[in-house]
Amino acid sequence: MISETVTRYRAYLEKRRAYVHAMGLLGYDMNTVMPKGAGPIVGDTFGVLSEAMYDMVTSPEVEAMQREILAQRDEVDPAIVRTAELAMEERGRIACIPKEEYVQYTVDQTIADRVWHEAKIKSDFQMFLPHLEKLIAAKKRFAKYYRPDASVYATLLDEYEKGLNTETLDRFFTTVRERLVPVIAKIQSQPDVSFLHRHYPIAEQRIFSDYLMDVLGLDKNHCAIGETEHPFTTEFTKYDVRITTHYHENAVEASMYSVIHEGGHATYERNIGDEIARLPIGKGVSMSVHEGQSRFFENIIGRSEPFIEAIFPKMQEIFPEQLKDVDAHRFYVAVNKAEPSLIRTEADELTYSLHVMVRYELEKRLFDGDLEPKDLPAAWNRMYKDYLGVDVPDDRRGVLQDSHWASGLFGYFPSYALGSAYGAQLIKRMEQEIDVWDNVRNANLKPVVDWLTEHIYRFGCMKEPGKLMEEAFGAPFDPTYYTDYLTKKYSELYHLD
Amino acid sequence: MISETVTRYRAYLEKRRAYVHAMGLLGYDMNTVMPKGAGPIVGDTFGVLSEAMYDMVTSPEVEAMQREILAQRDEVDPAIVRTAELAMEERGRIACIPKEEYVQYTVDQTIADRVWHEAKIKSDFQMFLPHLEKLIAAKKRFAKYYRPDASVYATLLDEYEKGLNTETLDRFFTTVRERLVPVIAKIQSQPDVSFLHRHYPIAEQRIFSDYLMDVLGLDKNHCAIGETEHPFTTEFTKYDVRITTHYHENAVEASMYSVIHEGGHATYERNIGDEIARLPIGKGVSMSVHEGQSRFFENIIGRSEPFIEAIFPKMQEIFPEQLKDVDAHRFYVAVNKAEPSLIRTEADELTYSLHVMVRYELEKRLFDGDLEPKDLPAAWNRMYKDYLGVDVPDDRRGVLQDSHWASGLFGYFPSYALGSAYGAQLIKRMEQEIDVWDNVRNANLKPVVDWLTEHIYRFGCMKEPGKLMEEAFGAPFDPTYYTDYLTKKYSELYHLD
Repeated sequence: MISETVTRYRAYLEKRRAYVHAMGLLGYDMNTVMPKGAGPIVGDTFGVLSEAMYDMVTSPEVEAMQREILAQRDEVDPAIVRTAELAMEERGRIACIPKEEYVQYTVDQTIADRVWHEAKIKSDFQMFLPHLEKLIAAKKRFAKYYRPDASVYATLLDEYEKGLNTETLDRFFTTVRERLVPVIAKIQSQPDVSFLHRHYPIAEQRIFSDYLMDVLGLDKNHCAIGETEHPFTTEFTKYDVRITTHYHENAVEASMYSVIHEGGHATYERNIGDEIARLPIGKGVSMSVHEGQSRFFENIIGRSEPFIEAIFPKMQEIFPEQLKDVDAHRFYVAVNKAEPSLIRTEADELTYSLHVMVRYELEKRLFDGDLEPKDLPAAWNRMYKDYLGVDVPDDRRGVLQDSHWASGLFGYFPSYALGSAYGAQLIKRMEQEIDVWDNVRNANLKPVVDWLTEHIYRFGCMKEPGKLMEEAFGAPFDPTYYTDYLTKKYSELYHLD
Repeated sequence: MISETVTRYRAYLEKRRAYVHAMGLLGYDMNTVMPKGAGPIVGDTFGVLSEAMYDMVTSPEVEAMQREILAQRDEVDPAIVRTAELAMEERGRIACIPKEEYVQYTVDQTIADRVWHEAKIKSDFQMFLPHLEKLIAAKKRFAKYYRPDASVYATLLDEYEKGLNTETLDRFFTTVRERLVPVIAKIQSQPDVSFLHRHYPIAEQRIFSDYLMDVLGLDKNHCAIGETEHPFTTEFTKYDVRITTHYHENAVEASMYSVIHEGGHATYERNIGDEIARLPIGKGVSMSVHEGQSRFFENIIGRSEPFIEAIFPKMQEIFPEQLKDVDAHRFYVAVNKAEPSLIRTEADELTYSLHVMVRYELEKRLFDGDLEPKDLPAAWNRMYKDYLGVDVPDDRRGVLQDSHWASGLFGYFPSYALGSAYGAQLIKRMEQEIDVWDNVRNANLKPVVDWLTEHIYRFGCMKEPGKLMEEAFGAPFDPTYYTDYLTKKYSELYHLD
């Protein structure tokens, strides 16, 4: 009886959810509260739980249930069918890896992450190198187990964004480079942004964060905010989402845009359909779509003039001294200052994609070319000079700046650029259907969130990411929306011809 | 081959440790960062992991390993023998419970805890009552499964402190009551403590907490401090200990003594022997011994005049305005003000045991007598009037004040009183062997911690708690050390005849 199988499968999925929850929480804790000296223990705990996950995901009994559900898909809840479909793909990627290698990788990854934190502080790439090499070697092996004949990097890309490949990305980055580099080159004089770097006490910045969460419509009963060195978002279900930020006393915009960025991720998760919330498909569908949401709120909404006009009175209330001689327009201009720089997470919208392009090119060469991990710093520094025209003074502000590789996230970076481009095409579509800007100008983001929920959020992983976005756009993806959006915005901001 | 069995057993213990870690972290998170609306999900996650724990702990394969190890105990590392011994006891307590009941209890307990938090805020006992009834009924059933012929309360007590029974406790509380009530009655005039309630900003109190952790010798690399409504300590291994406190802007001593109390628990865990740290026996041996440590540091050390003299200069440095007209002696007198009151955690040393006695008497009647949960508030209020002479204005400050029952901790409270009494006997012994007070007066707690490590901490659960303490005392436990200590201290403080 298929209904009996579905009941058993749902029980299995609930068990799986619990393990994912526990492992997710261990990861969250490791990056927030855990005292650093506890690192080795948590790695071993990860090892044990990941072994249990491996056994679950690859068990013949679970496979049989999934095959039965897929064979009789017409009689089964589509959410369960979709779950089984994606689970078979996941099974394919995992079951080909020998269990010991899979478990060892989980442990190695927590070690690499810990070492990276220290190496970054010390700006010591050599310290991190052996751990990075280990992760890269494992990722290469795993990709080959799964798809012996495919390019390794294509296999990695596909994991974060199904169907994504280097042809698409090469075309995308070529468009971006050809159209944006000339705009960047035209920028001559810069606005005065010194007021952003006055003293903004952390206690007041916390109040400001709470206000921003309110504006985004994030309910504290289901979304916590914490503080970490590197801001991130995690969720265990849509009912338990956590964002973090980092306060800099002399840079009010840093935490402000971290909160809006992570808040964008959280908004996506919080608006997944309740009916799929506990299933593995009850989460954001891909990294590009996810970064698309975070960067949409951060930049397209959060760095728009109407949004700044909406929140600026509250900002002046919280920071009366610091902002007494500033108006909303000056603030808007300041938070959009565009200038080639060293740090991706601090980069402006215009030059951002060039930071991603550096990582994309390096990853391609690391996995499918002849670049050795040991040669990364030199290659990194050279590309920053070539693409952004800046000299990298040390590895802390260079190749060690991002946490992704230390967490084994290779092939993830392109999501940021692609996500940014998604946002530009989305806003065009949205503007045709709802009154975006009058609402934003009144600090009312609800129509925007509702539109995104209707077209994207509620589906979770029910659709393939490419198809989901195409349906939301009402057209195929076209990166020129992105380059047009940036060209127009920065031509106005900098009065370019 | 026994060595092969031991290797397999160690692997099992490591797996068990990981699950205990994950569940402990879920509990910690629930009480710290987790947004409240996520409650139902975490309950279900607990259910899944506790089922896995049940299967592990009661598995015939594990039982066989343990029996084999115990049968050949002379050839096995004593730490593994002791682990197997205690695991067989744990197995006995758990395997007699039907699995569904065991799992359901875990889920119910997280629900009860959540409801209690809300009920306490609303001072609404009726809201909490059905959940409390459910936990009590389960605990009664479980005790009867395990020991059908024993008193239920004795079975519960034994779980927290092996060998403890109501005869011992009745005798103990009789001594305490007979000797301390007359002292309390003699107190007439009270010192001025108003300076404790000046404005102490939380930011400065956090700095003070860090200083106190330094004085206690707690290494931030292995011991984190956080903030919660109800302070507590948790540990995953000795390498990862977490304490929490709660800051009150108008009561500097509240967080101060929370930090020292929880710091006492943490000091115990941090000084477990490294060789047993990852084993289930690598933790504090019993609740009485544990509370003995926390209350030893909080009261016998922390509320001593030499300790106040040691830390007062630093306090004045952190709170110059608030303490400008206060000296160490006045501070010492103020933090030892004794007066019957409503809240156990805020009670002074002298009246503290009476608070515990109320709970002990109620628990006895709940489990072995005829007291119904619904009648708890009335019984509670009557006993507070009888024993402490205070009128309970509402259940928030009455029967709902403590979290223990909501977490299923019945039979735990006596540990606090017994632990306090342990401390008084310990200090007498310690004074004979080391120079306690000159070191404390110099903010040097190391000799004290070293002595406790040598005699108690390093052993973890290697010895039975009663035997451990008897060896540390160099004599049988005698509660008159405690009553003598309090009589002397308070007679001096209040100039009683």
